[in-house]
Amino acid sequence: MSLVLLAGTSNPPLAEAIASCLGLSLAEREATRFPDGEMHIEIRASVRGCDVYLLQSAGPPVEENLFQLLLLADACRRAGAARLTGIVPYLGYARQDRRATGREPVGARLIADLMGAGGLHRIVAVDLHSAALEGIFGMPLEHLTAVPLLGEKLRNDLGDDAVIVAPDLGATKLAERYARLLRLPVAFVHKRRLSGERVTVRGVTGEVRDRTPLIIDDMVTTGGTVEAAVGALLEAGCRPEMTVAATHGLFVGPATDRLRPLPVKRILTTDSVALPDTGSLPHQRASLAPLLADVVSRLHGDRSLSDLIAHA
Amino acid sequence: MSLVLLAGTSNPPLAEAIASCLGLSLAEREATRFPDGEMHIEIRASVRGCDVYLLQSAGPPVEENLFQLLLLADACRRAGAARLTGIVPYLGYARQDRRATGREPVGARLIADLMGAGGLHRIVAVDLHSAALEGIFGMPLEHLTAVPLLGEKLRNDLGDDAVIVAPDLGATKLAERYARLLRLPVAFVHKRRLSGERVTVRGVTGEVRDRTPLIIDDMVTTGGTVEAAVGALLEAGCRPEMTVAATHGLFVGPATDRLRPLPVKRILTTDSVALPDTGSLPHQRASLAPLLADVVSRLHGDRSLSDLIAHA
Amino acid sequence: MSLVLLAGTSNPPLAEAIASCLGLSLAEREATRFPDGEMHIEIRASVRGCDVYLLQSAGPPVEENLFQLLLLADACRRAGAARLTGIVPYLGYARQDRRATGREPVGARLIADLMGAGGLHRIVAVDLHSAALEGIFGMPLEHLTAVPLLGEKLRNDLGDDAVIVAPDLGATKLAERYARLLRLPVAFVHKRRLSGERVTVRGVTGEVRDRTPLIIDDMVTTGGTVEAAVGALLEAGCRPEMTVAATHGLFVGPATDRLRPLPVKRILTTDSVALPDTGSLPHQRASLAPLLADVVSRLHGDRSLSDLIAHA
Amino acid sequence: MSLVLLAGTSNPPLAEAIASCLGLSLAEREATRFPDGEMHIEIRASVRGCDVYLLQSAGPPVEENLFQLLLLADACRRAGAARLTGIVPYLGYARQDRRATGREPVGARLIADLMGAGGLHRIVAVDLHSAALEGIFGMPLEHLTAVPLLGEKLRNDLGDDAVIVAPDLGATKLAERYARLLRLPVAFVHKRRLSGERVTVRGVTGEVRDRTPLIIDDMVTTGGTVEAAVGALLEAGCRPEMTVAATHGLFVGPATDRLRPLPVKRILTTDSVALPDTGSLPHQRASLAPLLADVVSRLHGDRSLSDLIAHA
Amino acid sequence: MSLVLLAGTSNPPLAEAIASCLGLSLAEREATRFPDGEMHIEIRASVRGCDVYLLQSAGPPVEENLFQLLLLADACRRAGAARLTGIVPYLGYARQDRRATGREPVGARLIADLMGAGGLHRIVAVDLHSAALEGIFGMPLEHLTAVPLLGEKLRNDLGDDAVIVAPDLGATKLAERYARLLRLPVAFVHKRRLSGERVTVRGVTGEVRDRTPLIIDDMVTTGGTVEAAVGALLEAGCRPEMTVAATHGLFVGPATDRLRPLPVKRILTTDSVALPDTGSLPHQRASLAPLLADVVSRLHGDRSLSDLIAHA
Amino acid sequence: MSLVLLAGTSNPPLAEAIASCLGLSLAEREATRFPDGEMHIEIRASVRGCDVYLLQSAGPPVEENLFQLLLLADACRRAGAARLTGIVPYLGYARQDRRATGREPVGARLIADLMGAGGLHRIVAVDLHSAALEGIFGMPLEHLTAVPLLGEKLRNDLGDDAVIVAPDLGATKLAERYARLLRLPVAFVHKRRLSGERVTVRGVTGEVRDRTPLIIDDMVTTGGTVEAAVGALLEAGCRPEMTVAATHGLFVGPATDRLRPLPVKRILTTDSVALPDTGSLPHQRASLAPLLADVVSRLHGDRSLSDLIAHA
Repeated sequence: MSLVLLAGTSNPPLAEAIASCLGLSLAEREATRFPDGEMHIEIRASVRGCDVYLLQSAGPPVEENLFQLLLLADACRRAGAARLTGIVPYLGYARQDRRATGREPVGARLIADLMGAGGLHRIVAVDLHSAALEGIFGMPLEHLTAVPLLGEKLRNDLGDDAVIVAPDLGATKLAERYARLLRLPVAFVHKRRLSGERVTVRGVTGEVRDRTPLIIDDMVTTGGTVEAAVGALLEAGCRPEMTVAATHGLFVGPATDRLRPLPVKRILTTDSVALPDTGSLPHQRASLAPLLADVVSRLHGDRSLSDLIAHA
Repeated sequence: MSLVLLAGTSNPPLAEAIASCLGLSLAEREATRFPDGEMHIEIRASVRGCDVYLLQSAGPPVEENLFQLLLLADACRRAGAARLTGIVPYLGYARQDRRATGREPVGARLIADLMGAGGLHRIVAVDLHSAALEGIFGMPLEHLTAVPLLGEKLRNDLGDDAVIVAPDLGATKLAERYARLLRLPVAFVHKRRLSGERVTVRGVTGEVRDRTPLIIDDMVTTGGTVEAAVGALLEAGCRPEMTVAATHGLFVGPATDRLRPLPVKRILTTDSVALPDTGSLPHQRASLAPLLADVVSRLHGDRSLSDLIAHA
Repeated sequence: MSLVLLAGTSNPPLAEAIASCLGLSLAEREATRFPDGEMHIEIRASVRGCDVYLLQSAGPPVEENLFQLLLLADACRRAGAARLTGIVPYLGYARQDRRATGREPVGARLIADLMGAGGLHRIVAVDLHSAALEGIFGMPLEHLTAVPLLGEKLRNDLGDDAVIVAPDLGATKLAERYARLLRLPVAFVHKRRLSGERVTVRGVTGEVRDRTPLIIDDMVTTGGTVEAAVGALLEAGCRPEMTVAATHGLFVGPATDRLRPLPVKRILTTDSVALPDTGSLPHQRASLAPLLADVVSRLHGDRSLSDLIAHA
Repeated sequence: MSLVLLAGTSNPPLAEAIASCLGLSLAEREATRFPDGEMHIEIRASVRGCDVYLLQSAGPPVEENLFQLLLLADACRRAGAARLTGIVPYLGYARQDRRATGREPVGARLIADLMGAGGLHRIVAVDLHSAALEGIFGMPLEHLTAVPLLGEKLRNDLGDDAVIVAPDLGATKLAERYARLLRLPVAFVHKRRLSGERVTVRGVTGEVRDRTPLIIDDMVTTGGTVEAAVGALLEAGCRPEMTVAATHGLFVGPATDRLRPLPVKRILTTDSVALPDTGSLPHQRASLAPLLADVVSRLHGDRSLSDLIAHA
Repeated sequence: MSLVLLAGTSNPPLAEAIASCLGLSLAEREATRFPDGEMHIEIRASVRGCDVYLLQSAGPPVEENLFQLLLLADACRRAGAARLTGIVPYLGYARQDRRATGREPVGARLIADLMGAGGLHRIVAVDLHSAALEGIFGMPLEHLTAVPLLGEKLRNDLGDDAVIVAPDLGATKLAERYARLLRLPVAFVHKRRLSGERVTVRGVTGEVRDRTPLIIDDMVTTGGTVEAAVGALLEAGCRPEMTVAATHGLFVGPATDRLRPLPVKRILTTDSVALPDTGSLPHQRASLAPLLADVVSRLHGDRSLSDLIAHA
Repeated sequence: MSLVLLAGTSNPPLAEAIASCLGLSLAEREATRFPDGEMHIEIRASVRGCDVYLLQSAGPPVEENLFQLLLLADACRRAGAARLTGIVPYLGYARQDRRATGREPVGARLIADLMGAGGLHRIVAVDLHSAALEGIFGMPLEHLTAVPLLGEKLRNDLGDDAVIVAPDLGATKLAERYARLLRLPVAFVHKRRLSGERVTVRGVTGEVRDRTPLIIDDMVTTGGTVEAAVGALLEAGCRPEMTVAATHGLFVGPATDRLRPLPVKRILTTDSVALPDTGSLPHQRASLAPLLADVVSRLHGDRSLSDLIAHA
């Protein structure tokens, strides 16, 4: 069963980098649009009997990237691929895993079901917003983590006064994982109701005064969470020189404008999504390519992934 | 079982017009995007136990419109809708019903399966590119035709010298339907190989000399087919004053620029997709609203649709 | 479509109470075991064409209760029931929604799929451990909350010095829901790494000194979480007179022994599971029967549940 | 994974010929009927872990041949076959891909779904009536063409005055494929409405006067289409010495009687269905065995089929 | 939800009789064959939203009758039928419920799955060869019995010396049901190995000497079982004047020739299959029409069938 | 594809014995319960790409053993096992293959469907209560028999006066299989109605006077069938020194008390279920381990099982 790497158009540099790590070429394919706007997919190499890895990040525009992934999968399935694994470093709609107010869709489950209907056998994703995505996918979902990868890049930069900061309660488990790796203390920002009458306020739990915060999160989208956390941290007396680390750097909407004025000297993300326009920010990206290449290699060789799995 | 009309964002005027024909209001819903770009759907009225009709055209951008339809369906299904019918006047990807060159997806089937996975029970569509879409959909697909509707609008405008013209062989059956309705002769444009050595040329079969052509087709996309047909017709000696009628007027890419210089005095389509920018063209639209309202009314009342079905 | 209430053997008093609220009798059924130990189910009344509500809590022994629910559902399905809703106040295995360390099952998804394979159309559950269970179930899952119910029972008992306490970070959202209802401030207990070298310690965030804590959680199982929270709260100076409120009171293993010595004057749960032996504890139960009867009545009448849904 | 060839009873000579091309024997099997008329299938060789190719043409009696294919597939599946490919040279019910007048079945989809329910993983078919069958089948359908095969047999027989004739508009694409291969011009027979009042007449488009027609089609069933085409061609002045070529030669009902009086010197088909009684016709058959043997060999060896696929 | 009775072509008199019992007409439909031999089904009345009962016996030719049932079901499903019940008085392939010798299909399961794939929601059958067919069908299978019906017809004819005889061990439970109804003793014919060396012989257990046997079975196919039972009974000294009663009278192959010479004065079956040619036999048929009409009426009215069910 | 043996907790000695026969170790796994009573499964070795055999008997407590099997299967599936075969020597609920009195579940089908939903690809079972279980399972079910195994153990113990006795009519086919193997005559115990007025009595058919009976059955559960058979045999004059042989020895409820006083000198079963407490009985067990190890070895090597299959 030959290994075939086939990439959608969502993140070409990452796809190329994974191929390069594996010493392979990406399979030739056409992925254009017909004059009427519909996508046109054609695979140029035989995939019959092959072990195919479809590389496609489901970042914005999610619907197009997702649909292209499904078209690629269908083409592979009909062309006789023996095994179809979707490598989806960033998985959109992961936060829509419940109905918040009643008559809403459960988008995460819909995406999971569409991927199943499209013929994918297995999904590989990185630092999902919720570990329950595993249960939402009927097919096996290998949930990797970029924490060790990002941790290594951060390590040399961190002084003795560093403190890992979860910018909200949802990020505290992630913060613990960074803390264990980097042997640092943890603090977290929280919103809390002070009394029945008074409004909710944001506070910081943990020692941050005169310390240098490393704010971590699974993703930076509009920058709002980081902005609020920076405010709370400054109020709590931390040093005005922070680092932000997140697996997924989407930087959509007002993100760049929001983050530019903040006392953040470094923003580290992976390349899980296509490079957004963050030119004016101190934004660096650590590539997921070695990790994902390793995973492809292990899956193709039927070797264990256990040590790469995100432990919830 | 109450009737609920719920519309996506693909074609609001048509949705409003259908509701108006039925003397109903569209169900309130939110259909926006979260700051990170993901769609947010929320239905504001109870659909529990209801007979819900989801109005969404799957024209460009097809992926977004399709995905929004699936999210709406999922929201309805989870909120307890008893029956979910998708009213999809224009169904994108219908032409991808086979693999043309080997390793391509079969997009039409993929869309059909996604709609099934999304919980829709039945689809209503108009003048599909291929009648075989019925077989491609597992769920019942009611295949309506706009030919009578468009025929009525055209009738008074047609002189004794009119001739129905199919711009390619694929449109001849449709041309026959117009011809039977309007009691007119038929001609068709064809590409044909003249010999083993010489290239293919375009010709016209049927009497068109000094006649006024009514070019009909299922859809106008980039205008290329119409442009070529006009050329062949002029060469065959028809009068330089033509009408074009098509169910779906997408007018994408170079369509407007291509059609403007042609001796076409009138282009008639339905409003199956959102109004494209055809300001400089003699473009008129006949609304599908009365037809679709009638269909919704009959389906809700469990009455027969037979006389509205497109006979292939 | 007649309404039929059919109960398994997991929680007879709750089933009877729901029936009583609705002014109905439970459908007669046999639910015994054959001499060889296999369950024997027989329904004694016709359910053909009926709207059947299966009342069965999936508390311990989960496997038996779950399997009995599936047998009941199969009997109803084959006997012609038109609609099958499982009323499952407590849903076991809900916490197994991911693989914690690699090669584990995702028990929550398995249970969800078994319920689907067994023919259930919809599930009603109360205060699930994770809201993502909605996505894990393919069928609609109505996620109710007992917070208003428990809040009402608690209200008169709370002085001005009361404070809602989440015993761990996972319970903070639930705490907020109590706080909004009771117009009280919130505090939470957390475990936090203090430095790279030192071990993790438990602390309290929020004002608790000299206040009377109301510790809330979704469930009390072995009592370990409550015991630890009480310790942290006492250390933080709260008054030694606490209340514990949780939707599900399982009290398994060492629970009673752990909780008896604590300065807890009242433990309030619902009757979502069969009454455990908590004789020596100040344990009170507020019945879910009125809530669940209301839900059955609304579902049967195709009326909205929105105001009863747990807002995550 | 060993290759196993297993044949139904629909077309034993073709099955033997395919086996012979591959240097293999057909797997021993019993395919008889019990005294009560039910089919009895028993496979006499182990297929456990094998790559099984089921050879069965779905020509008349379609229902029996189809059902026997399903029984063979079920026997293989339960006996542990690893991969099940149906080689179905002629696929009945392919024309029932839509509802023509309203309340009809979509027979083509039904057959596709039954084959899926029966456990087949992939179908190989030849010159289907409609390329959309690919979309109608959920499993991969390899759509081969016999045009090159038939073209080779025809080549030496064709003079400079030959012209490829499509006997109706549905066959024009097929005619183009013959024309490209044989480097000949194309004409086609068409029915066309001449005016609103006058009835439809049949005409010929393309140069046929004094030329020798090669009438091509996907199948000859009752001979009606060929008979009408011959009439139109003679009227248009062609030479009264024609050849007919079609992939599938069913020759049912009045076919032989209709074709015998016509000035047709040669009728060439493949052996896709069992040899019908065409004794008095100048009927020759080119065997599909080499093509199908090649396909089996490639599929078994996971090699590409792209150059054998029918390009629509 | 209106009741629609729609019949295939397998057993028109029974279908008419059922309709007549219900005071209804059979829905108009076309069920012919196209010139190429494929079945053509068209329903002439609206079934949208209807409760449709498809009457089709799956006796020989089983494959055709089964496939026609599936085509009828598909036509109804696509035309909007709300509920589809197959009334299949005789269900072929029921005996193929296991693999007898290893590599055989399990035909009964295949048929069950095809009926499911074809869109049927429920099956009604009469005196199945094995009660385990209920488990083999995923959808509800209502297993009726004709024993009371046949028993009434037999009662007046039976003297004091009558004895119910099961012609093989498989029929003993059925014999018990007749015996309880008719208050008669039971005997049974058995094959039994007499020693390790000697061959198997047929014997009779129970008092039959000088008694008048009523041989009962679920079906008479080739008459072989009856012939052998008669021989054993005569040898055991019974009176040479017997009655045979069986639900299904197929009388295939040598049945008539085998049964004619036997001392059987009356053979009673139902009309579950089309009338075979039994002209020279003392064959009478009791109609299932009142029973099946009652079942249709109850199912349509959502009333219980319990008292009509075959108790295994 | 490596072979992995993974055992549940239902029958550890059998699992160890199978592993030992194969010269393999059982894969390390945790199969415990969390403090709240839910099962916790964790596999300690990689199963990625492996051919996994799950050893779990579904004897009492059936629900727990079954659910544990499903959890193990889910863990394997998600961890990337390539093939999952359940080795289930005793399959509970097999007798619930029909509805006996109307509104009961069909437990056997439910279990079959749950195993399918849980991801098992194939089941191996031994001497099922009904061969129709093959049809009830959608996946391949390899139905083995322990008759040769038990026959070998019995052979030397049987004198010339031995007779195989089926304790009821359901066991006669099984008795024939023993008889052919051991070259002995057969008798059977039966219940039979003697007349319309008199009640049913138990009798023996076949020569048993002064012979030594070997009572065989598929299983011994409460001992009731054996007790009644012994009574009938003694009454018929057999020697008061009997042997009982059955594949499955469950010995539940009153079994030991019932069997102890009987003139039974030896009870032989296999070890298909965990050793029950039969200390005071002359109970011996022949191990299924060599048979099951052989089957695992053949399945893993894709070799035929035909000679091991139970012929119905």
